[in-house]
Amino acid sequence: MTLTATPRLEARQLRLDWSDGRSDHFPYLWLRDTDPAGFHPQTGERVFDLTSVDLDLAPEAARVESGALLLDWPGSDTPSRFALDWLMAHRPGTARHDPAEIAPEAWRADLGAAGVPRATAGEVLNDDAALAGWLHASKRFGLSIVEGLDDSTEAGMAVARRIGFLRETNFGRTFEVVSKPNPNNLAYTADALPLHTDLTNQELPPGWQFLHCLANEATGGGSVFCDGLAVARDLAREDPAAFELLSTVTVPFRFHDAETDIRARKTVITLAPNGAVSEICFNAHLADILDIAPELMPDYYAAYRRFMQMTRDPAYAVTLKLKAGEMVVFDNRRVLHGRTAFDPSTGFRHLHGCYVDRGELDSRIRILARAAEAEQAA
Amino acid sequence: MTLTATPRLEARQLRLDWSDGRSDHFPYLWLRDTDPAGFHPQTGERVFDLTSVDLDLAPEAARVESGALLLDWPGSDTPSRFALDWLMAHRPGTARHDPAEIAPEAWRADLGAAGVPRATAGEVLNDDAALAGWLHASKRFGLSIVEGLDDSTEAGMAVARRIGFLRETNFGRTFEVVSKPNPNNLAYTADALPLHTDLTNQELPPGWQFLHCLANEATGGGSVFCDGLAVARDLAREDPAAFELLSTVTVPFRFHDAETDIRARKTVITLAPNGAVSEICFNAHLADILDIAPELMPDYYAAYRRFMQMTRDPAYAVTLKLKAGEMVVFDNRRVLHGRTAFDPSTGFRHLHGCYVDRGELDSRIRILARAAEAEQAA
Repeated sequence: MTLTATPRLEARQLRLDWSDGRSDHFPYLWLRDTDPAGFHPQTGERVFDLTSVDLDLAPEAARVESGALLLDWPGSDTPSRFALDWLMAHRPGTARHDPAEIAPEAWRADLGAAGVPRATAGEVLNDDAALAGWLHASKRFGLSIVEGLDDSTEAGMAVARRIGFLRETNFGRTFEVVSKPNPNNLAYTADALPLHTDLTNQELPPGWQFLHCLANEATGGGSVFCDGLAVARDLAREDPAAFELLSTVTVPFRFHDAETDIRARKTVITLAPNGAVSEICFNAHLADILDIAPELMPDYYAAYRRFMQMTRDPAYAVTLKLKAGEMVVFDNRRVLHGRTAFDPSTGFRHLHGCYVDRGELDSRIRILARAAEAEQAA
Repeated sequence: MTLTATPRLEARQLRLDWSDGRSDHFPYLWLRDTDPAGFHPQTGERVFDLTSVDLDLAPEAARVESGALLLDWPGSDTPSRFALDWLMAHRPGTARHDPAEIAPEAWRADLGAAGVPRATAGEVLNDDAALAGWLHASKRFGLSIVEGLDDSTEAGMAVARRIGFLRETNFGRTFEVVSKPNPNNLAYTADALPLHTDLTNQELPPGWQFLHCLANEATGGGSVFCDGLAVARDLAREDPAAFELLSTVTVPFRFHDAETDIRARKTVITLAPNGAVSEICFNAHLADILDIAPELMPDYYAAYRRFMQMTRDPAYAVTLKLKAGEMVVFDNRRVLHGRTAFDPSTGFRHLHGCYVDRGELDSRIRILARAAEAEQAA
């Protein structure tokens, strides 16, 4: 069915009465500001200058021709032209379609290791549809496994680079999780690591984390994951006052060694403008000396400790004993990770890691969706 | 004067009556959680486990000895020991000293090109005190110039790397600002660029920008800067309703080309929890099709257009005609930059750029301050 509409000029906006009976309003300034002719033909960036028109700008006439709205502006010989289906998709006040908006599915222990989405390195590296499917599943669960990686520290990073460039941090562009002498980070010991998210001391903690297992022969060293989204949602229901404190009170985080001293204030739970949980920042190791008002501390500690206990509750835990050639991939701003202690005298444990930020992963999903749509249209 | 204090055990907290007559409260949980013995000796990270104690934990006894508070916990043979001067510096509810917290000084056109802080590449590269001084001035004004750079694309980046690693983006780790065929960004044309901040389409727009001028022989191509902090503060006074809209309504930004489609929602003005302006995100080129409610659009456009007009008001502009060997450095999340059009037929214009994020720069300031303090103490 071809979309048609009847335009009506109102005081500061155009009303379009669609042929299906619905109506939408398009402020004149918006129409002038979004005229497709006002965007650079090569860069796609807006070159129209809003200061070149008055706030009370109004078209002299509006008509619909061949599926397009045409507007005549005073003092201009060239009408603005908008395809009606484009106007329908971009009508003010409605959310734009975004292929990267994939609803998260909160999970708990019953997901099990077997429920974690899996893909093979070969398909992800060579097949765009497989890459898109893997990214979709990874966003849904915040956790996935890629298997069949070569025995090379580059193999996991090559998979990550299929998405985008690596996020560099003070630990480098990639990092080795091995037991080291003189560690500057608990990850580089053989100690158990309770569940946490990485680098909460950064203004923007890294988004997606990639941990490629090259060797895991030591006794212990199991990897544990917990969906912070599930914990936060349950806390909101079970203890709204605790949820309120953890999502509104900012607390200091800090990492410091000989070369760096990086600090940030965060809430443990970050909410999107619509109230949905958008991020978890939880790292007791990097939590700096708490500096909130002493009167607030008893309630805050109770809320924080409850969250901590929940993250360690087996009801939320999925445990994986990673094998050489497997890489675990997770949203570091949603899914907490940890490990059991290991005994370095019983064998070598070596993970090679890197990060790719959320923005790059979402961009890759959009580009893959664009290519898939173009293919379908052809 | 040696600090002394008398401890008193209260219901859930310890009161310290300082010898100067003041008192402070230290909740018992906080004291247990911040016991210096609970931090890893090498990594400095907290290893104490909050879930190992009860919320109503209380010490059996408290005493002050040799400038330190000692606390005996039930069931523990080892008392916690806190230096009194450390407790004074870290008492709950008070802001911690941070050498990187440097009050910004809003500037307008009367700063003039002559008022922009300057440093030479040689001193910044070789002298820590000069580096610290330059970073301090850069944070104060959000803008500085480094001069005396070698005629090499590496020269400016070497100065940036004195601070920290470079922030990679979809444009690479460094970028060339030259007029290019088939540009994917307006910076890569010879067009005028109205005042803007870069990459507002990113979840975290890059912090500090470095633009090293290698050649500027074309007619035109002057660089213009405007302190977004000054504009925002003036707007708050002159038009509080506009300021309110720009600091609360998020709007979409997007950059897309053949390889990327990166989107983010932002307010034009971001406020810190204390209400101070902490960030400006203003880029009409990257502003995506506005999607807010049509009823809100007339007021929003009026506020946005007013902000835009202010950024172009000569009352705020400092213009520099960069010379080869000079590098301009600015806080891309505070100071807007732009350029006048240039005529590529009249000569070559070539800037080489990169970014270093705010976190790395603040870390460098802290490390330099730590070294300076250690030197003074020695």
